[in-house]
Amino acid sequence: MKIGILGYGNLGKGVECAISKNDDMELAGVFTRRDPASVKVVSGAKAYHVDDLAGMKDEIDVLVICGGSATDLPEMTPKYARDFNVIDSFDTHARIPEHFSNVDEAAKSGSHIGLISCGWDPGMFSLNRLYAESVLPGGNAYTFWGRGVSQGHSDAIRRIDGVKDARQYTIPVPEALKKVRNGENPELTTRQKHTRECFVVAEDGADRAAIEQAIVTMPNYFSDYDTTVHFISEEELLRDHAGLPHGGSVIYTGKTGEGDVNTHVIEYSLKLDSNPEFTGSVLAAYARAVYRMNKNGECGARTVFDVAPALLSPLDPADIRRTML
Amino acid sequence: MKIGILGYGNLGKGVECAISKNDDMELAGVFTRRDPASVKVVSGAKAYHVDDLAGMKDEIDVLVICGGSATDLPEMTPKYARDFNVIDSFDTHARIPEHFSNVDEAAKSGSHIGLISCGWDPGMFSLNRLYAESVLPGGNAYTFWGRGVSQGHSDAIRRIDGVKDARQYTIPVPEALKKVRNGENPELTTRQKHTRECFVVAEDGADRAAIEQAIVTMPNYFSDYDTTVHFISEEELLRDHAGLPHGGSVIYTGKTGEGDVNTHVIEYSLKLDSNPEFTGSVLAAYARAVYRMNKNGECGARTVFDVAPALLSPLDPADIRRTML
Repeated sequence: MKIGILGYGNLGKGVECAISKNDDMELAGVFTRRDPASVKVVSGAKAYHVDDLAGMKDEIDVLVICGGSATDLPEMTPKYARDFNVIDSFDTHARIPEHFSNVDEAAKSGSHIGLISCGWDPGMFSLNRLYAESVLPGGNAYTFWGRGVSQGHSDAIRRIDGVKDARQYTIPVPEALKKVRNGENPELTTRQKHTRECFVVAEDGADRAAIEQAIVTMPNYFSDYDTTVHFISEEELLRDHAGLPHGGSVIYTGKTGEGDVNTHVIEYSLKLDSNPEFTGSVLAAYARAVYRMNKNGECGARTVFDVAPALLSPLDPADIRRTML
Repeated sequence: MKIGILGYGNLGKGVECAISKNDDMELAGVFTRRDPASVKVVSGAKAYHVDDLAGMKDEIDVLVICGGSATDLPEMTPKYARDFNVIDSFDTHARIPEHFSNVDEAAKSGSHIGLISCGWDPGMFSLNRLYAESVLPGGNAYTFWGRGVSQGHSDAIRRIDGVKDARQYTIPVPEALKKVRNGENPELTTRQKHTRECFVVAEDGADRAAIEQAIVTMPNYFSDYDTTVHFISEEELLRDHAGLPHGGSVIYTGKTGEGDVNTHVIEYSLKLDSNPEFTGSVLAAYARAVYRMNKNGECGARTVFDVAPALLSPLDPADIRRTML
């Protein structure tokens, strides 16, 4: 199947990388809002301007939209769902119902599939919350993120006056993880679940105390957390914090038996060297499912909850049963 | 929906227990090959003889078949798939293709769904092997079982002359787990992955050395493992080994990036106080999906790979998206 990538940042490159691992996929092209001549595509595939998409409806089976959730995806995913099967990684949890509804309408009008909010959270973590809650109703679900780089929090620090560059790590609190894994079902505040560690490169002559104060008191991003700030040199940042590792765990505890005497702990965890490359890999697998669902006559918005797992695999169903069941 | 349970041992009781946790399900009856008058159903539901099933086609939406994989299920699941939607936990991996084919033919002839090999392995573990392999093709999948009681191995010990009762624990080798979690992709022999620990109650006057020798040299079951045997009293067995805990992990490592520089580790793990109650809980959730798929006009054999996750939840799709995505 022919995959198009719209938006060529870290995530777009992650999708490109995943396509190269799947023999049944080929990269039809990379589409950008920049000047295509300025975009060097790692695999050597062609870069097009986003406006060229209008003339390429028959050359793309699934378009993977790699934009930001704040402003890009709410506009782009419905727009392209009319003419293409699309998939995105929309992750603003509170706005998912609205986004789903917009994509559903557009996708149905063009008889396409629009799969939204795909990746690892939302995505694989969401699946694990659903499977666990369905098997053991009434239990407790906990999601921990990290240790990993939060790009949104890193960006928030970069916007502070006097900050040249920054990297923020989200870290689960070990004691909280331990209690949850023991099935103790603790009630945990935001502060008790995660800490935040920031590595900041300050501009020459900047007021470091003011920067630190601006970070730790920043509402939504840091004020509800125990946050530590380290000032480092630009060389140290590039040397020690160049990667984008991430991960985390969904831990679910539920009870069964007369008097709920038996406790069961289900844990799904990820340790990822590269957040965008893993997310891109999830998108590629779901692009295969999107292609198949549309071939099968389906249209409208979908999420990972609607996709039968066998649709993700290049293998024949009998081979999947024989080798993985 | 109305659920019937065929076979009322540990697993049947686990399913009964799970039905009580799901408000949209009711137990239509327990069906047994024994004299129904001799069967005391925990929840107070009625026990019937298995022959009564023939007259109850309209009173059961899904029949959960709780029999053994060696001889019961290969015969029973196809037999009942003609007249009922059925689900089983068939776990003889090598015979799954044949069982699937038999159930498929029977289920199609009666326009029912027959979902086979459901539980945690095969079942939830299989799903995690499939999801991981689909997202990160070409990686390495490892499955570890335990620490937990293997009922098949416990039974094998009980068949040895001079053994009154026994309990066998399967235990993952900690060093192997550690290497796999580190993404080292070790090649592991059977012996390097798991050890086996046996607690045996010997008959009075039995030859303990002979029993121990018979255990550790038993082909398929123990000869390929490092096995330890402890002789204990019947009181100790009942006091310390009454439960049926189990669990384990599916750990998958895959690589991405130019030159495969980035490693990702996906782990799904279960710590279960009661193996049959957890397995029964998985069967109940999939019984809901079976009911819905058949209502939707589908028929034939299915496995967990064919079931869209949303079908497992009692919640409305919009509520699932709002609360779990």
